[in-house]
Amino acid sequence: MNSITEYITFNTKSRFELINITIDVEKILNRSGIKEGLCLINSMHISSSIFINDDEEGLHHDFHEWLEKLAPHEPIKKYRHNDTGEENADAHLKRQIMGREVVVAVTKSKLDFGPWEQIFYGEFDGNRKKRVLVKIIGE
Amino acid sequence: MNSITEYITFNTKSRFELINITIDVEKILNRSGIKEGLCLINSMHISSSIFINDDEEGLHHDFHEWLEKLAPHEPIKKYRHNDTGEENADAHLKRQIMGREVVVAVTKSKLDFGPWEQIFYGEFDGNRKKRVLVKIIGE
Amino acid sequence: MNSITEYITFNTKSRFELINITIDVEKILNRSGIKEGLCLINSMHISSSIFINDDEEGLHHDFHEWLEKLAPHEPIKKYRHNDTGEENADAHLKRQIMGREVVVAVTKSKLDFGPWEQIFYGEFDGNRKKRVLVKIIGE
Repeated sequence: MNSITEYITFNTKSRFELINITIDVEKILNRSGIKEGLCLINSMHISSSIFINDDEEGLHHDFHEWLEKLAPHEPIKKYRHNDTGEENADAHLKRQIMGREVVVAVTKSKLDFGPWEQIFYGEFDGNRKKRVLVKIIGE
Repeated sequence: MNSITEYITFNTKSRFELINITIDVEKILNRSGIKEGLCLINSMHISSSIFINDDEEGLHHDFHEWLEKLAPHEPIKKYRHNDTGEENADAHLKRQIMGREVVVAVTKSKLDFGPWEQIFYGEFDGNRKKRVLVKIIGE
Repeated sequence: MNSITEYITFNTKSRFELINITIDVEKILNRSGIKEGLCLINSMHISSSIFINDDEEGLHHDFHEWLEKLAPHEPIKKYRHNDTGEENADAHLKRQIMGREVVVAVTKSKLDFGPWEQIFYGEFDGNRKKRVLVKIIGE
């Protein structure tokens, strides 16, 4: 069994941001030389997500509006987590809807994707340096 | 390390449909000869889900009603994604709640399940040919 | 390839309960001797979750309140699943938001976590003996 572990880092610029990291993951896969296996991609933060969906601007607007409705940022005082001095309780909830991680099949040295699958980092509490873990195991 | 990769295909007949694919996955596992490992099952589409829950008709009705409330199909014009000519923005949202994939342990040549776990394909934007990826790695 | 499979069992005391099982998973990893691999942790029940988030009491209160709003327990008769004699339809829905499983990277013999990641069992229909599966594959 072979494995590779790498970390993608970036600074997010706003509270809500969806960043397409598919190419970054593909580069790591190419470096690994792994032909058949499983690729885990997860956020290392608890107020952001990794998820797979469409790279379409209108949809990303819809995600923002929808998540804000299901887990509103305001009023900040409605959340007990924010009594600790934080104001990101909503981001911890949003991340549960969108998910922490994805696991993608590696087949014939490629991410084994349907035609529209793209990997996104979803930021819900931005303005800091963030890290994504990519680990591939296989042969 | 050993691996098997197969694709389950079917046509969905209505916009909302939950299809039990547990037996299909078990057949692939039997063909693989893998005794200990991990089995990934994911939708290859971005408006449908793979998830594990109960095979109970009343519950499936509840899922339908609940998802429609959290991410309503109508009014279609409320979603910016639908400005592209699509009318499935709600399906992209529903899929995030229900999830893209499951990873199941393979132990002693079986899917290592609790008594009620069953694997479902959840269709939220139907009437087309759909594909599910099953990849098992192990020994 | 090496693997270990273990089951964590416990009794939950109330309908809603979040139990930090990170140390239990770390002990299993230490017993396995696996240095590089993937660790699957899943609930074996269909009305509870495994998820990764913050071990902060205020946030756990917020999760409870939020899930109760998105998938209310009452009125019990509003769910068709409860016509079967159950009264836990809401728990099956809550589990979909919070997720069935997590997959964690194992790097240099450790769970490869960001600073705040902790693994929780989320109970939404308690008062019974419950089981969590931990499977690690790697080398």
